[in-house]
Amino acid sequence: MTTLRNALMSILCLLTLMASTAFAAEMKKTLPGDLTLAQAQMVIAAAQAKAMAIKVPMNIAVVDAGGNLKAFARMDDAFLGSIDIATKKAVTARSFNMSTRALGAASQPGQPLYGIEVSNGGLIIFAGGLPLVDKHNVIIGAIGVSGGSVDQDESVAMAGAAAAAR
Amino acid sequence: MTTLRNALMSILCLLTLMASTAFAAEMKKTLPGDLTLAQAQMVIAAAQAKAMAIKVPMNIAVVDAGGNLKAFARMDDAFLGSIDIATKKAVTARSFNMSTRALGAASQPGQPLYGIEVSNGGLIIFAGGLPLVDKHNVIIGAIGVSGGSVDQDESVAMAGAAAAAR
Amino acid sequence: MTTLRNALMSILCLLTLMASTAFAAEMKKTLPGDLTLAQAQMVIAAAQAKAMAIKVPMNIAVVDAGGNLKAFARMDDAFLGSIDIATKKAVTARSFNMSTRALGAASQPGQPLYGIEVSNGGLIIFAGGLPLVDKHNVIIGAIGVSGGSVDQDESVAMAGAAAAAR
Amino acid sequence: MTTLRNALMSILCLLTLMASTAFAAEMKKTLPGDLTLAQAQMVIAAAQAKAMAIKVPMNIAVVDAGGNLKAFARMDDAFLGSIDIATKKAVTARSFNMSTRALGAASQPGQPLYGIEVSNGGLIIFAGGLPLVDKHNVIIGAIGVSGGSVDQDESVAMAGAAAAAR
Repeated sequence: MTTLRNALMSILCLLTLMASTAFAAEMKKTLPGDLTLAQAQMVIAAAQAKAMAIKVPMNIAVVDAGGNLKAFARMDDAFLGSIDIATKKAVTARSFNMSTRALGAASQPGQPLYGIEVSNGGLIIFAGGLPLVDKHNVIIGAIGVSGGSVDQDESVAMAGAAAAAR
Repeated sequence: MTTLRNALMSILCLLTLMASTAFAAEMKKTLPGDLTLAQAQMVIAAAQAKAMAIKVPMNIAVVDAGGNLKAFARMDDAFLGSIDIATKKAVTARSFNMSTRALGAASQPGQPLYGIEVSNGGLIIFAGGLPLVDKHNVIIGAIGVSGGSVDQDESVAMAGAAAAAR
Repeated sequence: MTTLRNALMSILCLLTLMASTAFAAEMKKTLPGDLTLAQAQMVIAAAQAKAMAIKVPMNIAVVDAGGNLKAFARMDDAFLGSIDIATKKAVTARSFNMSTRALGAASQPGQPLYGIEVSNGGLIIFAGGLPLVDKHNVIIGAIGVSGGSVDQDESVAMAGAAAAAR
Repeated sequence: MTTLRNALMSILCLLTLMASTAFAAEMKKTLPGDLTLAQAQMVIAAAQAKAMAIKVPMNIAVVDAGGNLKAFARMDDAFLGSIDIATKKAVTARSFNMSTRALGAASQPGQPLYGIEVSNGGLIIFAGGLPLVDKHNVIIGAIGVSGGSVDQDESVAMAGAAAAAR
């Protein structure tokens, strides 16, 4: 009796699993218009080209609309400590839909958001992170760059962001 | 007296800083033979090609000899949860100079390394991570792939690793 | 049929494992020129000697070119809280290829890198961490010292760093 | 007025600081009989000698009676992933005053402590960690070794522990 019941249960389980797998296979997994890897790699290529032009090796991170890492590149001789900073700059920029420079201005001692950097597992509150906006003006992700002065970082991030807007 | 001493100190500090900056500018920042970004991007391109061939969207992470992230790509529709897994697979493979499959075999219940996965901030102990070895047989980093079955992940990692060995 | 196939698969797996182990045994595991333990222990001995000379018990941490811990010593009566600080100073100095003093100067309120210390799981942005440079001017790691005033810490780190340059 | 008050405040602060420093200088900072750095370095030297004898590069960590890191060495070519494991083995052994092998036996699936490895920020539950006991049979710390098979790790830890007992 138990054996038969177990056998039936197994078949039932298998059928359920097959059904749910078939369903899963047909589900659309990504929002329409979200940043593609092709776009992200174009953003990184544009940023890399700018970094080479100004001769500063950079860490470059790109996240999608969900704020999750899509592509990353650390140029040769770029700071090891900037892996995390570039990534956090991108996450920070998408988290608040503004440049990390703008967020930083509001987070200085005495300013309204003072101390915000300890939230979200660590935000970066200086320049080098920018939202990525497509040609329809939809935020589709963000770029974070770290490796030089914050102005250099931001100029490289801008070069990357321009590639996303095309 | 104090003013004069302070002025002298300031000049001394400035000179020291200038000297140390000049010095810093000449330091070599990367050990010879370490994985370059060009190599890492070739590894990712080869892995991506394999993933497209088997029609499974993957997360692909590449670390250098020091175990630090060098390049990353998340293919469209690939699991969000695999960003961390792919990265940890690469770190795990370099941390122990072996495939994550081999480490996993030794980490099952009753096996010698059972429980190892809670170390190092979280290791991944199933297939999909491989050391990257150059043509002189030096370990120069590792690749981690996540997004399909572990066998699929490993086949994509192998395609990437082959590109590093050239 | 199934039994035979399984047996053949097992033999194949075993051969693959043996081949990969033989291969693994011949891989070079460290990049040429990276900090050796002998060097790291000389760095610590030199730092310890300086700490004894100025009569301040110190925590001394040494990391290699990849930023990974190579050697550590906590002198008797040195602060428990400085285990982490010394280690983070070394990691910070290698992460940005500069002294933690220099990084700290750029990270004060109103300065460009204000807030950087929350990145990388916690950086230390006061003096006592220095890159280690070999006689060919290659950065091969870093030293971090904590236990006294930041000037004392840095003087001990300098004594250690001098031993690496020889 | 303000200037005078500030000057007085400064002097008061300085006196308070000096007084508290003087007090601090006279406090005994370490329990009598706790592991000294000299002992810890002898433990590491003995472990290193054993590791060289069996030709397996090891990570060796030593903690004191409080479970805090006292000394560490990573031999050339030893696993990067074993920095954390060696340290956690030492902490684990002191945390429960037993070998990590003994703790591991009680932590297998179905055993009383199953799952304990996720506590304390990650314990290691396989061999290679041992308490350090002085000649009066007092636990004064622990050693953790990682880099080979768990039996090799433990044999090296035993060589280190023997040096503490002398």
